[in-house]
Amino acid sequence: MKLTPEQEEEIAAERGASRPTRRATVPALEEILYEVMPVLDHGFVRVVDYMGDDGAIVQAARVSYGRGTRRVSEDRGLINYLMRHRHTTPFEMCEIKYHVKLPIFVARQWIRHRTANVNEYSARYSILDNEFYIPAPENLAAQASVNRQGRGDVLEGEAARHVLDLLRDDAERAYAGYAELLNEDETGAPRDPSWPGLARELARMNLSLNFYTQWYWKTDLHNLLHFLSLRADPHAQYEIRAYAEAMLDTVRRWVPLAHAAFLEYRMNAALISASGLVVVHRMLAGETVDQAASGLSPREWRELMAMLGRSE
Amino acid sequence: MKLTPEQEEEIAAERGASRPTRRATVPALEEILYEVMPVLDHGFVRVVDYMGDDGAIVQAARVSYGRGTRRVSEDRGLINYLMRHRHTTPFEMCEIKYHVKLPIFVARQWIRHRTANVNEYSARYSILDNEFYIPAPENLAAQASVNRQGRGDVLEGEAARHVLDLLRDDAERAYAGYAELLNEDETGAPRDPSWPGLARELARMNLSLNFYTQWYWKTDLHNLLHFLSLRADPHAQYEIRAYAEAMLDTVRRWVPLAHAAFLEYRMNAALISASGLVVVHRMLAGETVDQAASGLSPREWRELMAMLGRSE
Amino acid sequence: MKLTPEQEEEIAAERGASRPTRRATVPALEEILYEVMPVLDHGFVRVVDYMGDDGAIVQAARVSYGRGTRRVSEDRGLINYLMRHRHTTPFEMCEIKYHVKLPIFVARQWIRHRTANVNEYSARYSILDNEFYIPAPENLAAQASVNRQGRGDVLEGEAARHVLDLLRDDAERAYAGYAELLNEDETGAPRDPSWPGLARELARMNLSLNFYTQWYWKTDLHNLLHFLSLRADPHAQYEIRAYAEAMLDTVRRWVPLAHAAFLEYRMNAALISASGLVVVHRMLAGETVDQAASGLSPREWRELMAMLGRSE
Amino acid sequence: MKLTPEQEEEIAAERGASRPTRRATVPALEEILYEVMPVLDHGFVRVVDYMGDDGAIVQAARVSYGRGTRRVSEDRGLINYLMRHRHTTPFEMCEIKYHVKLPIFVARQWIRHRTANVNEYSARYSILDNEFYIPAPENLAAQASVNRQGRGDVLEGEAARHVLDLLRDDAERAYAGYAELLNEDETGAPRDPSWPGLARELARMNLSLNFYTQWYWKTDLHNLLHFLSLRADPHAQYEIRAYAEAMLDTVRRWVPLAHAAFLEYRMNAALISASGLVVVHRMLAGETVDQAASGLSPREWRELMAMLGRSE
Repeated sequence: MKLTPEQEEEIAAERGASRPTRRATVPALEEILYEVMPVLDHGFVRVVDYMGDDGAIVQAARVSYGRGTRRVSEDRGLINYLMRHRHTTPFEMCEIKYHVKLPIFVARQWIRHRTANVNEYSARYSILDNEFYIPAPENLAAQASVNRQGRGDVLEGEAARHVLDLLRDDAERAYAGYAELLNEDETGAPRDPSWPGLARELARMNLSLNFYTQWYWKTDLHNLLHFLSLRADPHAQYEIRAYAEAMLDTVRRWVPLAHAAFLEYRMNAALISASGLVVVHRMLAGETVDQAASGLSPREWRELMAMLGRSE
Repeated sequence: MKLTPEQEEEIAAERGASRPTRRATVPALEEILYEVMPVLDHGFVRVVDYMGDDGAIVQAARVSYGRGTRRVSEDRGLINYLMRHRHTTPFEMCEIKYHVKLPIFVARQWIRHRTANVNEYSARYSILDNEFYIPAPENLAAQASVNRQGRGDVLEGEAARHVLDLLRDDAERAYAGYAELLNEDETGAPRDPSWPGLARELARMNLSLNFYTQWYWKTDLHNLLHFLSLRADPHAQYEIRAYAEAMLDTVRRWVPLAHAAFLEYRMNAALISASGLVVVHRMLAGETVDQAASGLSPREWRELMAMLGRSE
Repeated sequence: MKLTPEQEEEIAAERGASRPTRRATVPALEEILYEVMPVLDHGFVRVVDYMGDDGAIVQAARVSYGRGTRRVSEDRGLINYLMRHRHTTPFEMCEIKYHVKLPIFVARQWIRHRTANVNEYSARYSILDNEFYIPAPENLAAQASVNRQGRGDVLEGEAARHVLDLLRDDAERAYAGYAELLNEDETGAPRDPSWPGLARELARMNLSLNFYTQWYWKTDLHNLLHFLSLRADPHAQYEIRAYAEAMLDTVRRWVPLAHAAFLEYRMNAALISASGLVVVHRMLAGETVDQAASGLSPREWRELMAMLGRSE
Repeated sequence: MKLTPEQEEEIAAERGASRPTRRATVPALEEILYEVMPVLDHGFVRVVDYMGDDGAIVQAARVSYGRGTRRVSEDRGLINYLMRHRHTTPFEMCEIKYHVKLPIFVARQWIRHRTANVNEYSARYSILDNEFYIPAPENLAAQASVNRQGRGDVLEGEAARHVLDLLRDDAERAYAGYAELLNEDETGAPRDPSWPGLARELARMNLSLNFYTQWYWKTDLHNLLHFLSLRADPHAQYEIRAYAEAMLDTVRRWVPLAHAAFLEYRMNAALISASGLVVVHRMLAGETVDQAASGLSPREWRELMAMLGRSE
């Protein structure tokens, strides 16, 4: 991920500023504000604004006139209680805004989360850069044979080289075609003066889904945590998970109490089905239960045993 | 509207704070941050947090790395363009949070605006104060005779006195009943030790709709402006309009360019129907058009003439 | 719950109709379509329209050209898989519309669920009936002493009688005041011709929160199930739970496969926290664990033991 | 646009069905239910389900027990009133579901409308067909020189031929690369048995944005009309407008009264700014106003004159 000198200067200017405010601030998040956190080969996430802190959650839950916070231990207890009992609205009182650069196929998964505000770089108005995603060799996986959605073993040797070459060649050709369709030089003048160039809104269709786009994405903490619970999950596609993990780290800096509650009661918690619960009751009563006797399907049995730490 | 000394102290503590931040700040809004703006007889609105400024709208529209702002005249032009052409997403990049105290019947209208985050004071957990809304004499209107939804002439003399007495007496009786049902003194101990008191979640049903509740209400600038376009409108019920007008003033302090664009292209703009437009074309061509010849219903004709500044 | 003869006739006319359609239909739901299901003393829920069936979930998950359904066992397997793995969007493809009559304080809880379409009977335009909620004696509970939000023991004898009398007297007085403020007889003419009556939008504020209102409420199956998971839960206030339970029964008729999956993987499933899971692992390994050794708070320990069927 | 015989059979089976229902039906919409309406070169829109009719709007506005409809002229008047005064919630009581096949770059614009339910064909699980969008020659436009977002003159002759060849060649090459990466024959077995093929979720990134995807898209009438007001507008990109126009025609069949009101008060109505309104007042008073004297920018002046039917 490379920024132009102009972009680096703009970011440095933002980071250099210090203004007085009466609002709640979070020094640990201010520390990385505006900074680029690289993700994948050319992408990034950076926090560009935020509103509220752990105290804002407490404040809203208590509908108080002032900060509403008491001792840290009481605030932690309240936040844990809210998370455990799905009282989600106080978490909506915190808001965060990211600037993200990401491949288009990742953007297409991401945008399915509707409760957020988005402004994407427009290829109707502007010209996209020649930057596309090529997986690192360790992320170049074969199709999974058991799970139709997932990845299988990592490709190696000749096969891997072939795949990478193909992806790179096709992306380069796609961009060359795009540039030819636009027919513009750096000044915006036609490269080939014999024709005017294709409209940008049409030319863009020649680009492939691994080209990078960027957007401003803003959401509240509750919806962010919901997004992260799905996208930082091992079942999520690696490429979006890489973004989710970087963002999860910004949550830790921003609202440490809510972050801890989220790990404890959501991210690392287990949802056990009604029938699975019966199996647990029987096992705790000392009974030996196997899949056949459990009433669960083989797949559900496997999932339950994994949750209970019993790989079989 | 009276605050307890504790509440005044909490607000003063918030207002006294000054912390450094790298985020955009808006001094004109910081000036009134946390301050109580009285509305109706016991209600208020106060801004308790905000995120973004006019520059954040520009920044999102341009998806820039830095502030994205240029000369004020260029930023104004861009914001006007976005408002005029209904490019609403950049306005969603600003967020504001209010603490509001308001009568329950106003809260019931307000909550119909769904794209917002809300935490209301809970009468399942807590006890509501003995504060209810009684209209000022100049807002005590008769039912409109022409418009089934509106208000007619202001009541006067004996009728007005009678209405105010009735409202006040019934509200006081409702609160007395509520207190009796709760059966708690200030310490939470039973006033009448012979029985335990009714559950709070049930006792509250004895209160009437003019009692005050309060909430934290947070939304983005686009949805706030939509709310204000409906609720600061002369057709809105006076009681909610009083809140909307106070909030419109906070928008003016917060994002002056967006505020001006909103007045110009939304609040004070006119939507003329397809048939109405034909009438305007004919009139501009020098034709004399009356309602009969216009093809409009009498009511639409009246509305059109009002827009065109021709009361008849 | 009493309907007027006109209302009964309107409902009978709807139920009498039979029109041909190419859309999917659900005979078990058609059977009760438009019928009033009484809830509380004067309220009801009735299904007034629906779209889709279990097949629509399958169809959307497969993005098929036709019904998309295969053998019932395959459809059930797919629906269970979707529910278990939180693939929620296919459940949004079914839509249902209810007509509900409910006390205002219940409506205020209900409306907090934002992802729904609502049209409420307007007391700005129309006059509310003299119908208010009085709890049945078995639901007349004292404030819980352990849980600040809940109900404790049921009131009995003199205390119960006193509470019911107070609620009824105050509601009747509130309605008498409301009628006096409106000053309209059945024909809409003033009862007391010496003054014009107070505007409806103002007079309504004299009513208490146990008066009944009504609305059309429409939502998709995913959001309905989310609503039911919170409101059919034992922690929900009894009065809203009574509605949720009636609605859960309509879900059973409408989409039996989704209903079964919902009970198995959501309603009757258990969410065990990360620390709770460690305790389960230790117990399954044969270790004797008590609260002190568990690392859980007493409250969390109690909740975990309840989930595991070990009341202590 | 070509369907496989299996798809045609599935659609025919749906269209052949006739089931009795107590719900409102709309024969004019049933007539085309499930039918494919071709859009662009390989795309389509088809209505696959619906709920409600014009009567449902009236019914919700009146919160009635039965159909709520009266004489057609009264219903029309009410629907016009609701549309004119932005009482939008009754329009949310109607719901419609489409099955759409569309190029990915169109899907990316479309998905920005968040208040809808979507299930897209998943290229993580399944393999996309070799179908991509190539504009018809009359839609092959140059970049506009005045408006950075729009299209200019249509390309002709050699330039057009060159553009079409380039788009087609690059799309074919992209698909060939995709197929090679997948390494699957029709039976799912590896074409080249020496390696396992790349995971589908990765291989898809080689496709360009003109490839077709498909989805089920469901929304309520209010949000559909909002979508159409933006996307059937002349400023919308041609490719999405083609879909919007086909859908607008389904609205005409479905809810003719709401459709007429939409054209009259939204689609063909004009929003005149506060300053523009002053100009109109002056012109109607007989004054001759030109741009310089109007206080409007040249662009706004041009837009206003166009609205007033005075091209200059």
